[in-house]
Amino acid sequence: MAILVTGGAGFVASNVIDRLLAGNEIVFAVDNLSLGSVQNLEHYRGGGSFRFIEADLADVDAYRAAIAELTRQTPIHEVWHLAANSDIRAGSLDSALDLRDTFMTTFNTVRLMDEFSIRRLIFASSSAVYGDRRDVELAEDSGPLLPISNYGAMKLASEALISAAAQRFMEKALIFRFPNVVGMPATHGIVLDLVNRLRTSPELLSVLGDGSQKKQYLHVTELVDAMMWCRDHGDRGLDVFNIGPDDSGVTVRQIAEEVVAAVAPEARIQFGVGKQGWIGDVPHFRYSIEKLKRLGWEPSLHSGDAVRRAIAEISQQGCLDGGGKF
Amino acid sequence: MAILVTGGAGFVASNVIDRLLAGNEIVFAVDNLSLGSVQNLEHYRGGGSFRFIEADLADVDAYRAAIAELTRQTPIHEVWHLAANSDIRAGSLDSALDLRDTFMTTFNTVRLMDEFSIRRLIFASSSAVYGDRRDVELAEDSGPLLPISNYGAMKLASEALISAAAQRFMEKALIFRFPNVVGMPATHGIVLDLVNRLRTSPELLSVLGDGSQKKQYLHVTELVDAMMWCRDHGDRGLDVFNIGPDDSGVTVRQIAEEVVAAVAPEARIQFGVGKQGWIGDVPHFRYSIEKLKRLGWEPSLHSGDAVRRAIAEISQQGCLDGGGKF
Repeated sequence: MAILVTGGAGFVASNVIDRLLAGNEIVFAVDNLSLGSVQNLEHYRGGGSFRFIEADLADVDAYRAAIAELTRQTPIHEVWHLAANSDIRAGSLDSALDLRDTFMTTFNTVRLMDEFSIRRLIFASSSAVYGDRRDVELAEDSGPLLPISNYGAMKLASEALISAAAQRFMEKALIFRFPNVVGMPATHGIVLDLVNRLRTSPELLSVLGDGSQKKQYLHVTELVDAMMWCRDHGDRGLDVFNIGPDDSGVTVRQIAEEVVAAVAPEARIQFGVGKQGWIGDVPHFRYSIEKLKRLGWEPSLHSGDAVRRAIAEISQQGCLDGGGKF
Repeated sequence: MAILVTGGAGFVASNVIDRLLAGNEIVFAVDNLSLGSVQNLEHYRGGGSFRFIEADLADVDAYRAAIAELTRQTPIHEVWHLAANSDIRAGSLDSALDLRDTFMTTFNTVRLMDEFSIRRLIFASSSAVYGDRRDVELAEDSGPLLPISNYGAMKLASEALISAAAQRFMEKALIFRFPNVVGMPATHGIVLDLVNRLRTSPELLSVLGDGSQKKQYLHVTELVDAMMWCRDHGDRGLDVFNIGPDDSGVTVRQIAEEVVAAVAPEARIQFGVGKQGWIGDVPHFRYSIEKLKRLGWEPSLHSGDAVRRAIAEISQQGCLDGGGKF
């Protein structure tokens, strides 16, 4: 039996695939390669436990054909649905992007799981489903859910679909609400963005907002740890987990200073005005991970450690083309 | 300035249009006529304040063309988005139905409001967004939101889209979570269903489930009252309101007995087994309308009164074709 990873060429997926293969699973990956990179998959090639098919998962016929091809010899018993538009800003400018790459990929995943009798789903949702609730500690049962970005809206819409499908035919459905995640192979995000800016202009690091925005960050290795833990220790049925670090986060100012220290210690930092960098950005939120801790998993890195490790990794990774995308 | 009513040929919409026209508004209606009926609109024809265009709102080009045509002389300043697949059971069998008629109609409405600079939206959401939470009194900020039907999922997905759009460009966005609504011109629902069954076989009324399912019902005239009240008394920005009666509801058994008394007093009632009629049905929920009451609106009818009035109206309305649809 195999595990299907959607968005398989992306940042989180490549860390998930590493872990699944290390656990002797057979892994099938699909990706449209719009944000992900085949480079992330190169080192699996030739291994008998891994197969990749390029397909647009928003196109149900292409997606169905890919699954039919992959399952010719080995059936799929679990899906890790990680495909999504991860460029929140781009989705704010063009709502069709999140519709297609985040929502329709979920709609088609659920539909094809039903068609191919696959009953276990792990889904990468987001803290963005909560919207801007900066005064509240956000637990999994917090409401209302009023996202302020199309990205958050289409993650919430995906959760809703999965919730209804879980009732209909799934044996297990895990919804993970991701925090900001850092690490390698980065395709987007503040650390990569700041490292790249500083490489382009090594004397001045220009930062959106006044630098006081404080957010929590989790290193991708811990994110994958937490997901594996819940998958192996949780109950059957539908469940939702916040995943995050257990601290109050770090400010953009701290991250900028760490990036400067690692990449170009002589550079000056120039901050903008206001707390919010762009419409749809949630400037600050407090995340409860009590449910995750009750199940027995705790993060070992603080947000600051996670960012520091990611800066070290990313600043080693060489220059990037295409505005921060591979 | 005109008001656009989507799903304009439907049950709730025809009551909304009556009220808007009585308030001297200019009303434009669009509908794909898949569930609604032009009969509901006949009596407006020829009046200078009303125009109807048949269009499939899931088709953005057809929808855009309809709005362009309607706004040639009179711009639209407010949208009442009431179009949706209201047949929850059908949506459980074919998820593409709720995707198209509930979700994509919302996606296109939001997109075209942005294109045509329309900044006020009133949206018909549903108690189904809450899922099956029978132990909890459901307020607007209750969580988690884990719908158990595709219908509820696509209503929640629509709310999410509207929430993000409100942040981006809307002046006012009101989300109303409807309870079970009864009244005329009924196109679906338990009262119409039972009346039609009894007309088909006047000796035996066969009922899904054991009859103990208890739900709240609001009469459509009160629903429209409440929406108008919130529209005229609420704040700017995004707001969510439960609308419902202020009681604990009536059982299916009571409704069945009332229908028998009104339509065929000699008929025998035969109940099924279990509390849940079909997958995706929420057997019982408790709805808080405290927020609505704080704004100054209260229902005057109890669930039982609303059902009784609807039975009287519907049993007068003559026989219906097409399995309860006009």
